[in-house]
Amino acid sequence: MSDKQNETAVKQGIFSIGTANQAYQQYFTGQSYLQSLVADPAVNVSVGNVTFEPGCRNHWHIHHHGFQILLVTGGTGWYQEAGQPARQLHAGDVVVTHDGVKHWHGATQNSWFSHIAITAGTPEWLEPVSDAQYKQLKEEV
Amino acid sequence: MSDKQNETAVKQGIFSIGTANQAYQQYFTGQSYLQSLVADPAVNVSVGNVTFEPGCRNHWHIHHHGFQILLVTGGTGWYQEAGQPARQLHAGDVVVTHDGVKHWHGATQNSWFSHIAITAGTPEWLEPVSDAQYKQLKEEV
Repeated sequence: MSDKQNETAVKQGIFSIGTANQAYQQYFTGQSYLQSLVADPAVNVSVGNVTFEPGCRNHWHIHHHGFQILLVTGGTGWYQEAGQPARQLHAGDVVVTHDGVKHWHGATQNSWFSHIAITAGTPEWLEPVSDAQYKQLKEEV
Repeated sequence: MSDKQNETAVKQGIFSIGTANQAYQQYFTGQSYLQSLVADPAVNVSVGNVTFEPGCRNHWHIHHHGFQILLVTGGTGWYQEAGQPARQLHAGDVVVTHDGVKHWHGATQNSWFSHIAITAGTPEWLEPVSDAQYKQLKEEV
């Protein structure tokens, strides 16, 4: 299996991949990219297109006094809430994270991954997803 | 020009076209389709994939105590706020409608059109966009 699976599909998606995600780099393991789509003080959500290189994932985090909706636009990734099994994600999948729920999301080891994130509230960033934990996740074949 | 422009691209998009939009049919001119993506009482927005056949558009409407964000996913369409020129939309475009702003959106005469709608607040549905008004809009070529 190529370690660049879905790279073209993700990079040529409907919404731009944007630029290297410097602002949030400290809260990610690996390389991500961010294209802001909506950052408007008159609405209570922000919208962005987030792209993860294979192996990239964000740290465990919580959205306080808010929520997060993920609309998966390309590649293959993971979503996991604390105490629950990880859910594998593909284009067209939708995830809703409720207020206060600890979770993380990111690419699989072998695939690029992209989602639109619709986010409200204040994030609290927690510990990274360890290599040991991440690498034991089993991809569907 | 085919009157079915972009039909395949829109129907084979990342998010399902859903079913005939019966719930809102009275507020649309022409045929639309709706696939609900998020309808969760724990979050303050709903998310849906809305598809318009060529010539289809919704009535003028207002989102009170809320907003609407459109993420264009396919085809060619129009967005217009009252008193402003219509803006032509293509895949990747983003529109933010603020609280209280009267507006409409829909397909061009010759193209299918689809967008994700992220909506908060209570809609007030107003008069249709007349054929005379709609048909004088000039498509880019």
